[in-house]
Amino acid sequence: MAVISTSRRVRRTPFSAGVEAAGVKGYTVYNRMLLPTVFRSVEEDYHHLKRAVQIWDVSVERQVEVRGPDASKLMQMLTPRDLRGMLPGQCYYVPIVDETGGMLNDPVAVKLAEDRWWISIADSDLLLWVKGIAYGYRLDVLVDEPDVSPLAVQGPKSDELMVRVFGEQVRDIRFFRFGWFEFQGRSLVVARSGYSKQGGFEIYVEGGDLGMPLWNVLMEAGKDLDVHAGCPNLIERIEGGLLSYGNDMTDDNTPHECGLGRFCNTNTAIGCVGRDALLRVAQEGPVRQIRPVEIHGGTVPPCDQLWPIMDGEDHVGNISSAAWSPDFNTNVAIGMVRMTHWKSGSELDVVTPEGVRPATVYEAFWQ
Amino acid sequence: MAVISTSRRVRRTPFSAGVEAAGVKGYTVYNRMLLPTVFRSVEEDYHHLKRAVQIWDVSVERQVEVRGPDASKLMQMLTPRDLRGMLPGQCYYVPIVDETGGMLNDPVAVKLAEDRWWISIADSDLLLWVKGIAYGYRLDVLVDEPDVSPLAVQGPKSDELMVRVFGEQVRDIRFFRFGWFEFQGRSLVVARSGYSKQGGFEIYVEGGDLGMPLWNVLMEAGKDLDVHAGCPNLIERIEGGLLSYGNDMTDDNTPHECGLGRFCNTNTAIGCVGRDALLRVAQEGPVRQIRPVEIHGGTVPPCDQLWPIMDGEDHVGNISSAAWSPDFNTNVAIGMVRMTHWKSGSELDVVTPEGVRPATVYEAFWQ
Repeated sequence: MAVISTSRRVRRTPFSAGVEAAGVKGYTVYNRMLLPTVFRSVEEDYHHLKRAVQIWDVSVERQVEVRGPDASKLMQMLTPRDLRGMLPGQCYYVPIVDETGGMLNDPVAVKLAEDRWWISIADSDLLLWVKGIAYGYRLDVLVDEPDVSPLAVQGPKSDELMVRVFGEQVRDIRFFRFGWFEFQGRSLVVARSGYSKQGGFEIYVEGGDLGMPLWNVLMEAGKDLDVHAGCPNLIERIEGGLLSYGNDMTDDNTPHECGLGRFCNTNTAIGCVGRDALLRVAQEGPVRQIRPVEIHGGTVPPCDQLWPIMDGEDHVGNISSAAWSPDFNTNVAIGMVRMTHWKSGSELDVVTPEGVRPATVYEAFWQ
Repeated sequence: MAVISTSRRVRRTPFSAGVEAAGVKGYTVYNRMLLPTVFRSVEEDYHHLKRAVQIWDVSVERQVEVRGPDASKLMQMLTPRDLRGMLPGQCYYVPIVDETGGMLNDPVAVKLAEDRWWISIADSDLLLWVKGIAYGYRLDVLVDEPDVSPLAVQGPKSDELMVRVFGEQVRDIRFFRFGWFEFQGRSLVVARSGYSKQGGFEIYVEGGDLGMPLWNVLMEAGKDLDVHAGCPNLIERIEGGLLSYGNDMTDDNTPHECGLGRFCNTNTAIGCVGRDALLRVAQEGPVRQIRPVEIHGGTVPPCDQLWPIMDGEDHVGNISSAAWSPDFNTNVAIGMVRMTHWKSGSELDVVTPEGVRPATVYEAFWQ
């Protein structure tokens, strides 16, 4: 297996020292920054995530800050989701599309104030798109990447750990809401959110100097809860149907193909880029869509390129993510399937690099 | 050392099978794609590059294609370099800046025709910036990423190898010019360029299906020339002063700070984004600039974050790339140094993770 070469270009994070001390074994690169992928083993991390609590360095969720009188106007230009009813203190999952309705990113928008937003991005330089639109439309906004690095606390014991560090009030944060909480005299955004289905929080650590102090306090406070360093888990996120931009969707795909049509209020999101294209898509519906796919037989190899889904000689879709699930005792996968074959129960074949496997398409993800 | 985890998001290339068969030992991720960093060892690769010929998978130099009636207008908006005299068949190194003059990328522009360009990019999603500007200004252009993956042939025996595959006419290609050459019935752009100082070519392989056939033909044709798979070499590129976007410069830096002032014709490049800011910079000159820096003593550790350059208690710059050079028998480095200390011969200190080292600033790179 090839090792990853270090350089300044592949950025370290404020938590890298903690991640290394915890024995990280693998990385990927996400937004030109190191993202851990495994600590003990992907399966051991998976079981632990479901029963205890983990601290995740998700600094790679870089923020695009949009600030100024035209901030809300620009935000609505960026997404087909209607933002008019959104209040400060809320987080919205927002598809971002180009003029043809192709997905450029699927971030979480964090509304700090009427004239100040963060966009917590997936893996593409959304900053350049936002700056380009703001410049082209001569909007009165400042757009930049602030020194904010999210740290996630995920797992069933997250509430218990967070209460010990931030106080009882963290329990009152509702899903996809945030509050301001104090740590070492500084005020931080703490949201109930995260890239797992096990519950938890994301702390938007503003100021890299706070990174290791917070990491250490959480690790110390959670010792008897079996807290451990963790990271987004491939198996758990497929079971839960959490999509990954760049893996399960790219700018080739519309939100509707990704099953994100419910986040597109294209009729009322006046002024959004891509509106014309998406109105057409909304009317006709997508001809292919993301589906959970079970791949039968033993453990599949790592999925690092699209695996064709076949009905005999017909190429009817592609698998984009796959892993063996210990809890469901089968291979769980995410695929884009043509409408002719996306009905739940469809029996198809998947061409993996290690041979053809029978597979079944489903309607709902595993958990 | 941590391994790199594979996924579809970190894209394979048309040459990945060849790279793996050649025994790649390390990767980095560049434009969300795998870029080899070492085959035998960085030092062995370095010596071989200087005496023989190497085939490099530089698919990560993704192309932004700009096509249509407004293509040349858009290109001039993107860069402060005056493009009016540029002819089809030429390649220009073009700084791309934002409205404040901050570097967004330092690509090579390839002019295919008056209304068709490729931008061969460094490590940032320039596509999103170009699309944003084109959309904001309602330009009549198509902007996308075509299926083009550059393959570089580098080293002193490059001409000899290329002649065997493409014919004697490749010798006539001048530096930073290109011609169209046939391979298996398809016409490919072949330019005399590349990210080393050892001479060579870049073949813009249009169509991923041509990747391995071309790789194999080159490998076979060069056997007696000791051809080997290679990659951009850290030591050689520092010796030659070849900058790396994301390492030696970011959007914090102006072209003038990067020593790229000679590529900024800000007075005549009418309509370029960032013109106001760069006119000011051109008048005042930068207060810090990139310099070659020799770091004395034994081999330095890998440079994966900025190393402060100190004059006693004063922080006067940062090292961004560094490596031991066998040929020059010292540590070669690239740093950004304040004007108060950038004079050739300045004796300073560099704070590496393994201790403070004496260092000397120079005017010219090693080769």
